[in-house]
Amino acid sequence: MEQQATRERAGAAQARDLAERDVRTIVHPHSVIGEPAEPLVLDRGEGALVWDVRGRSYIDGTCGLWQCPVGHGRRELADAAAEQIAKLEFYSSFGDYSNEPSIKLAEKLLELAPAGLRRVFFTNGGSEGNETAIKLARLAQHHAGHPERTIVLARSAGYHGMGGGSLAATGIDRLREGYGPLVPGIEFLGKPHAVAGDPGTADRLIAELEERIESIGPERIAAFIGEPVLGVGGMVPPPDGYWPRVQEVLRRHGILLIVDEIVTAFGRTGHWFASERYGIEPDMIVTAKGLSSGYIPMGAVLIGQRVLDLAEGAAFLHGFTYNGHPVGAAVALANIEILRRENLLERATTLGTRLLDALRPLEELDHVLEVRGVGLMLGIEFTGGDTSGVQAGARAEGVIVRASGTSIVLSPPLVITEEQVDTLARVLKEQVRAAH
Amino acid sequence: MEQQATRERAGAAQARDLAERDVRTIVHPHSVIGEPAEPLVLDRGEGALVWDVRGRSYIDGTCGLWQCPVGHGRRELADAAAEQIAKLEFYSSFGDYSNEPSIKLAEKLLELAPAGLRRVFFTNGGSEGNETAIKLARLAQHHAGHPERTIVLARSAGYHGMGGGSLAATGIDRLREGYGPLVPGIEFLGKPHAVAGDPGTADRLIAELEERIESIGPERIAAFIGEPVLGVGGMVPPPDGYWPRVQEVLRRHGILLIVDEIVTAFGRTGHWFASERYGIEPDMIVTAKGLSSGYIPMGAVLIGQRVLDLAEGAAFLHGFTYNGHPVGAAVALANIEILRRENLLERATTLGTRLLDALRPLEELDHVLEVRGVGLMLGIEFTGGDTSGVQAGARAEGVIVRASGTSIVLSPPLVITEEQVDTLARVLKEQVRAAH
Repeated sequence: MEQQATRERAGAAQARDLAERDVRTIVHPHSVIGEPAEPLVLDRGEGALVWDVRGRSYIDGTCGLWQCPVGHGRRELADAAAEQIAKLEFYSSFGDYSNEPSIKLAEKLLELAPAGLRRVFFTNGGSEGNETAIKLARLAQHHAGHPERTIVLARSAGYHGMGGGSLAATGIDRLREGYGPLVPGIEFLGKPHAVAGDPGTADRLIAELEERIESIGPERIAAFIGEPVLGVGGMVPPPDGYWPRVQEVLRRHGILLIVDEIVTAFGRTGHWFASERYGIEPDMIVTAKGLSSGYIPMGAVLIGQRVLDLAEGAAFLHGFTYNGHPVGAAVALANIEILRRENLLERATTLGTRLLDALRPLEELDHVLEVRGVGLMLGIEFTGGDTSGVQAGARAEGVIVRASGTSIVLSPPLVITEEQVDTLARVLKEQVRAAH
Repeated sequence: MEQQATRERAGAAQARDLAERDVRTIVHPHSVIGEPAEPLVLDRGEGALVWDVRGRSYIDGTCGLWQCPVGHGRRELADAAAEQIAKLEFYSSFGDYSNEPSIKLAEKLLELAPAGLRRVFFTNGGSEGNETAIKLARLAQHHAGHPERTIVLARSAGYHGMGGGSLAATGIDRLREGYGPLVPGIEFLGKPHAVAGDPGTADRLIAELEERIESIGPERIAAFIGEPVLGVGGMVPPPDGYWPRVQEVLRRHGILLIVDEIVTAFGRTGHWFASERYGIEPDMIVTAKGLSSGYIPMGAVLIGQRVLDLAEGAAFLHGFTYNGHPVGAAVALANIEILRRENLLERATTLGTRLLDALRPLEELDHVLEVRGVGLMLGIEFTGGDTSGVQAGARAEGVIVRASGTSIVLSPPLVITEEQVDTLARVLKEQVRAAH
């Protein structure tokens, strides 16, 4: 008892010390400049649990930012990283330089990917991937004799990153304010959300797409970019039949389809790629996050045959320093092997259904608009207001969820246990009920 | 003898196999789409040496892309990575989440940085850092009541990255062609290069800066971005007296100074930051590469007091997933400790002088315009044509250098031995002499 109390006092003192040093030295993403928040300093993780420096544990209902399908604290991935660092930590992959782990990873990704994808271009993360895809789409059109095809169609509530091009394609106004002018030539379509399952939604969105292409002129449009399931926009699955119809319209007009699977790939929706689930054969797929479970920053853009045909013979003068990082590639290969060996794709479907079923009754509440999800990717949308109180309340009960505008979003590690799912659901329901 | 021959045959077979798989699966940065080059597959590294899968060794005259001051194969950094992964591989640092390694690294960076820098914002690499700095400069001006201050002054031959904003600020035309429109509002000034030490260069550049600010209107300019020493642009040190004068002009007009130290920081010029060497007190410094020696992708933007004052109270809705990555931070801390313990900053100065002295006689050749350098950052500029033949010739002799337009650029690991420096110089001189 006394030992326990001593430990707790030491943990509290360490937490205070680190908190003071944090606020004196760091600007966190999504913080207010000059008004730093008291930080929650995390110290270790295992499976779907993380512990702060005080020793308190939390069920990780978000995977940080969706990035850890295999969960925290995998010794196997530490070993893969250390082994590769000791051999060849990194060398540039620009031009003709290469390394074995990135070659193996490229092969593996093309083996798992939907039909039509032929080559891999590596990055360090999602934003860089979308910058790459937008640049490559424009270059391909330019090189194929269509220099006027520069416009990119994107969607309201879509999220594609924080760089000059990826942010320009992000359909969330408050994220763009104060940073402009951003990359021009992005045209936004309506949010792809069938509220209350309205069966007419896809018809309206397809009609809007056709009309917009007509009014812009297809000969000015390079590409369309979209997430199979909206992520930051609230974990919104597509209206029934949406994707094959979008794809058909785009192909008819020679517009490339960039599918942003930064959140959805590597098991999150119960498949290696959500494109498979929704019947999409993309011209490019952008990945990151689950690719390496976030253990090492790593991303990849999968490039399809149509893009290669258009760009054939073009010099692709583009690339980020850490392209094809051998440590990231070695860790990604080991991560993909864990996903396969432990059948985590199936698990995402089974546990996602369990969690969705547990949360669905919240739809009866007046202040809840919708409870929705696919695989282990769920959202609870309120009729209005913000949801940060639910996030804070759940954390106090040892559960981490994420407030994203009017929605609470959930994306736990795929290794979360049934008991942890049930605790997460119970705590979250209490908080949502108390929030009206 | 027979064993050796067997090993060589096995290595050659493996090299052929990997090369075939590489060209079937990967698009490399700066390659031609559909026309992949035969790759050089690197296998291991130690100090300033790397070996390919055939077992051939090369003196690394470039650090890949400038990223490895402490050299290759540091077991200590493998251990730092593995230890942190096993504890807490990663958790988002958005909002109030934090972790101990990133707090310690932020403290360390502010301790080493020039005066006036107060906070750290983490990234995964250089391009992201410059996207961050440009966005933060605009946000700070916007928030302080100067929404018209969006223009960014950049320089011809400057290189700042490959994202929509960082590429827009890159003053190398061929890197931008086919990708536009990019982020608008970038204005380019002349290349800061005192050819043959022309003492009037700084005067002309400062006059140009003053005139351009006048013609644009200072009330429309957010920031100026520049590398202390041009990197991709050919390893060009600034004209004498340039930086303090630039800084004075900018301050007088309320224009923020972003110093891109992605290449120059962490010992490359014999200092922790080249800003120190050139008497700059930047409003922001962007770093990456040498920060972690490239073992794990990692970058940081150091933010100064003027930026904090302008942006006080603004929500900084910006951030890349892997911000504050604990593994990257743990490795960066260990990397900085190696730089300190082994006196590698001094070594950069000593060996840089040795290498520059050895190469200087090449200036006598008709086809060589200039041999120049600062610390272990050197360039040999030809009077015209491209330098890729020199790169290929040197590689065949077991020395890696980098052709960058009309220049050959050098940035070996700071741990390179004197003997390796001498071999590098001898091989390179032969190739440059043979190149006319």
